[in-house]
Amino acid sequence: MNYQNHHAQTPEKQIDGLKRKRFTVQHPMGKPPARTQKNNSRPKEQHKKPVRIIPLGGLNEIGKNMTVFECSNDMFILDCGLAFPDAEMPGVDIVIPDFSYVERHKDKLRGIVITHGHEDHIGGLAYLLKRVNAPVYGSALTIGLIQHKLEEHGILNKTVLKVVKPRETVKMGGCMAVEFIKVTHSIPGSMGMAIHTPAGVLVHTGDFKIDYSPIDGEVIDLGRFSELGSKGVLALMADSTNAERPGYTPSERKVGTSFERLFTQAGNRRIIIATFSSNIHRVQQIINMAAKTKRKVAVLGRSMINVIATAMELGYLEVPRNLLIDIETIDQYTPEQLVLVTTGSQGEPMSALTRMAMHDHNKINITPLDFIILSATPIPGNEKHVTKVVNELLKSGAEVIYESMYEVHVSGHACQEELKLMLALTKPQFFIPVHGEYKHLVKHKEIAVEMGIPKENILLTSIGNVIETDGVKMQIVGQVPAGRTLVDGLGVGDVGSIVLRDRKHLAEDGLVIIVIGIQKASNRVISGPDIISRGFVYVREAEEMMIRARQVMQSTLEDCTADDLKDWAALKTKLKEALAAYIFEQTKRSPMILPIIMEI
Amino acid sequence: MNYQNHHAQTPEKQIDGLKRKRFTVQHPMGKPPARTQKNNSRPKEQHKKPVRIIPLGGLNEIGKNMTVFECSNDMFILDCGLAFPDAEMPGVDIVIPDFSYVERHKDKLRGIVITHGHEDHIGGLAYLLKRVNAPVYGSALTIGLIQHKLEEHGILNKTVLKVVKPRETVKMGGCMAVEFIKVTHSIPGSMGMAIHTPAGVLVHTGDFKIDYSPIDGEVIDLGRFSELGSKGVLALMADSTNAERPGYTPSERKVGTSFERLFTQAGNRRIIIATFSSNIHRVQQIINMAAKTKRKVAVLGRSMINVIATAMELGYLEVPRNLLIDIETIDQYTPEQLVLVTTGSQGEPMSALTRMAMHDHNKINITPLDFIILSATPIPGNEKHVTKVVNELLKSGAEVIYESMYEVHVSGHACQEELKLMLALTKPQFFIPVHGEYKHLVKHKEIAVEMGIPKENILLTSIGNVIETDGVKMQIVGQVPAGRTLVDGLGVGDVGSIVLRDRKHLAEDGLVIIVIGIQKASNRVISGPDIISRGFVYVREAEEMMIRARQVMQSTLEDCTADDLKDWAALKTKLKEALAAYIFEQTKRSPMILPIIMEI
Repeated sequence: MNYQNHHAQTPEKQIDGLKRKRFTVQHPMGKPPARTQKNNSRPKEQHKKPVRIIPLGGLNEIGKNMTVFECSNDMFILDCGLAFPDAEMPGVDIVIPDFSYVERHKDKLRGIVITHGHEDHIGGLAYLLKRVNAPVYGSALTIGLIQHKLEEHGILNKTVLKVVKPRETVKMGGCMAVEFIKVTHSIPGSMGMAIHTPAGVLVHTGDFKIDYSPIDGEVIDLGRFSELGSKGVLALMADSTNAERPGYTPSERKVGTSFERLFTQAGNRRIIIATFSSNIHRVQQIINMAAKTKRKVAVLGRSMINVIATAMELGYLEVPRNLLIDIETIDQYTPEQLVLVTTGSQGEPMSALTRMAMHDHNKINITPLDFIILSATPIPGNEKHVTKVVNELLKSGAEVIYESMYEVHVSGHACQEELKLMLALTKPQFFIPVHGEYKHLVKHKEIAVEMGIPKENILLTSIGNVIETDGVKMQIVGQVPAGRTLVDGLGVGDVGSIVLRDRKHLAEDGLVIIVIGIQKASNRVISGPDIISRGFVYVREAEEMMIRARQVMQSTLEDCTADDLKDWAALKTKLKEALAAYIFEQTKRSPMILPIIMEI
Repeated sequence: MNYQNHHAQTPEKQIDGLKRKRFTVQHPMGKPPARTQKNNSRPKEQHKKPVRIIPLGGLNEIGKNMTVFECSNDMFILDCGLAFPDAEMPGVDIVIPDFSYVERHKDKLRGIVITHGHEDHIGGLAYLLKRVNAPVYGSALTIGLIQHKLEEHGILNKTVLKVVKPRETVKMGGCMAVEFIKVTHSIPGSMGMAIHTPAGVLVHTGDFKIDYSPIDGEVIDLGRFSELGSKGVLALMADSTNAERPGYTPSERKVGTSFERLFTQAGNRRIIIATFSSNIHRVQQIINMAAKTKRKVAVLGRSMINVIATAMELGYLEVPRNLLIDIETIDQYTPEQLVLVTTGSQGEPMSALTRMAMHDHNKINITPLDFIILSATPIPGNEKHVTKVVNELLKSGAEVIYESMYEVHVSGHACQEELKLMLALTKPQFFIPVHGEYKHLVKHKEIAVEMGIPKENILLTSIGNVIETDGVKMQIVGQVPAGRTLVDGLGVGDVGSIVLRDRKHLAEDGLVIIVIGIQKASNRVISGPDIISRGFVYVREAEEMMIRARQVMQSTLEDCTADDLKDWAALKTKLKEALAAYIFEQTKRSPMILPIIMEI
């Protein structure tokens, strides 16, 4: 790697390398660039205006990617995604970043730039735009998909959406400008960004892979990354998703080759292919194969229908005339005349494919005349769902292609050798691995170290960290609120840790309620104790225990004086403890115990 | 494959091949064996005594393996395992088979034979032995591990445990005998079985792989499988776990080679290795490497300590003197003098490694001086747990070896080429793939078809199926109760589908309770309505909604006549529906609603 031109920043802002050296010893090659001598005399205060990078999502986690960039009185946001809840968050629909920092500084917000249209990059946007106002920039497809979302949330009218093209630059207030750079990924219209700031150029790759033969011919703009690298990149922020995987991610075209083989293998059977709705290139390859083999294509699943419609409208998907048919008309065709493209490749419980598998789909009945391809890899956490769907499809006699050996899926993220190429081209002074769990960030750091970037110039950061740079140093200088906001139904943020803890407790051991009525005047128990349980034991099997539990409560109450019956908090604790002890002794379980006292 | 000797059954019971042909066309090579002519004249009724195979677990599921074999008035059981609960079973500790069929026929039970000591083969035994009585047969290690379990359950005294050696045969009543055959697997003392019955020989592989260089030198007894095949095997029941995987499973010795490399890489750091406690050969290899590199070994985790103690006692594990040290004394050693062997390779929340990762272990503190090896592959469903542990260990600065590329784990199950070898050696007339989900059974069937076994001779069966064979035909003739019994704390079977449904409901949306007190005499509401919620919303955030909900209940009650207030069932329904409608409108959630009426 050649660092010779490393400090040649944007022309308008050349600064003193030696002065910089007084503040830091972090030059990548351990020595100052040769040309710095000439500026030797500049005063110290001419240092560059500091720029702050504040990741609010996507670090030490998969999903809800969001980063704030700030300089002087300007702020902009890069991506605003959602994450899916894990097993620790029962009932939660989606997880979005904590927006409180952005809300507090919304006057400074100049814009929101979006790298691509995946949910983990756009899924939080509608929630954010209900609280702040700013124009949103992205490629035509990205904006098309966002449009659809904002419409659903009823906030399309109040938002300015702007389509940008690769190599376009958008000013973000007085001191920052974002330049969009074409990248390849598993959705068309993906772009990385060069953020031109007074401190230097920050490159953010977005999600990317290096596909030399993408389906739409739109190759990643390696030239521009290289140019930026030659001029000097202050910091690179790069996608770490596949940092654990050696080698290269194969081209999307590889899947086409597999489809070719499998369409032949399917013979006269109906072909059903499940994939990610946003993978337009995958869908394009299916359409191409269908056209070639004279099959008609019907589309199933709400998100698949939406995305395909948007992609066709915007010219991202080319479909021969009369190839697409309505799902209602499939009975007019024989199995060998059909390809169904569907959602459900992750075994999502409500998806079209899952409903087919469970004999719960009103239009599709799976039979031995079906040849089903799962064109996806299970995302960690979904393995069991996918297996269940595969098992059920097989039970209906269909052939199911789901194993990796069939090569019906390729990743959309760069593997180690591609990550090296990005580092080699951009030659950054500082490196911030992004998009990944801690283990991915660590691997990406190791790769960067191998590439010659000094350890101390690589920042493993967390969400909420305020990373500040003046073009010389780059360090974490503070912390802002960051975390997860849970969305459950219409509620945004009203399910917090207490509610989740209760849900978990209820799920694991169920609930036992003790009800008593106390007469105000006399301080006497005049009703109850009654015991009601849910999710605890099958009561018929445990009748005796429940009767005995009532007796335990009875005798606890009998031990109470009139004064005891006045202090409800203490009384509740007493009842709770006695019942918990009895139940634990009997069952080794600890249900939630809820004493309810009614005053009469 | 050579089927020439195929019908040479046990010598005492030669029967007529031609006669058989009248009942079936299912001969594997599609033609009767040459020697059948001579017995042409035997009467039809001399057909063999029927034998029944009844799988009660392990088919279309992973775990709780259990199979019943019956002939005349005799019955025996092969394995009795547990399964671990999935996300649909919150709070459940373990899942065991439904024993009701065995209980109903316990007078016929002659014995229980166990293939090996893994939980999915022995974990249900203690529960079964509380209901039925029979001697238990297995290898020394298997019996040693069972002994420990029965002791914990307090039923060791009442049970007869018998150690058997490979090639030993045990009679199971008047007409069946079980011959034990050495196999290799990820626990020592594993055996397959040849079940000699009047209908013919049934071979059950148990869990197996073909390891030509096992750590204890005890190679799988391919000779015996081959001999049986030559004499004629009526049916093969074989492990399908890895039926999806092409090629061969590497020898356990491969892991040793990786350890050798990694111990060098660890340098002067402390080595911590997490693996399955039952993988004694893995532990042996760790001990060997520790001895070679002059490190001491300390053991952590209850099950690891138990299994190692049992294995040492029975001679399955050879440990040089003074190599093992007490965990309490590790402070006396420097990091480079230590290897810790621990449980937690699956990221189990309460395991030693997880507690170390979460800074919650009272003896071990993870630092950059730790070199940690996860010598296991995450079992489907555990991926996220394992990732969490890896992330946390990395955050403490330790190096963590967890990726498959380091080859620190090999499977214990046969891959496709090994499965083919087993089929080739045993040359069964019928084939029943066992131990696997439906997709595994289907793959295993495909392999058998490739090997020349006719499709109609391969039975894809389910638990509870009664498979009957008279040595000629083999078919499903009935169904007995089978399924899962949930164990939660001390309760066995008291958590059923209703309880689980309630738990799931409570987990997803929480609970809202309405309490009212009704005066008996006057039929008037004299207390409440009060509303209490748990796991629903964070009440402070939703105060207004809760006040309004109370008003909805109030006005519902006001609409009720005195008569309405007498009919509690109808009143409860009315309250419930009104509140559910209001809450759904406000939140799009459907918490469990529990109206409680107290009579005063």
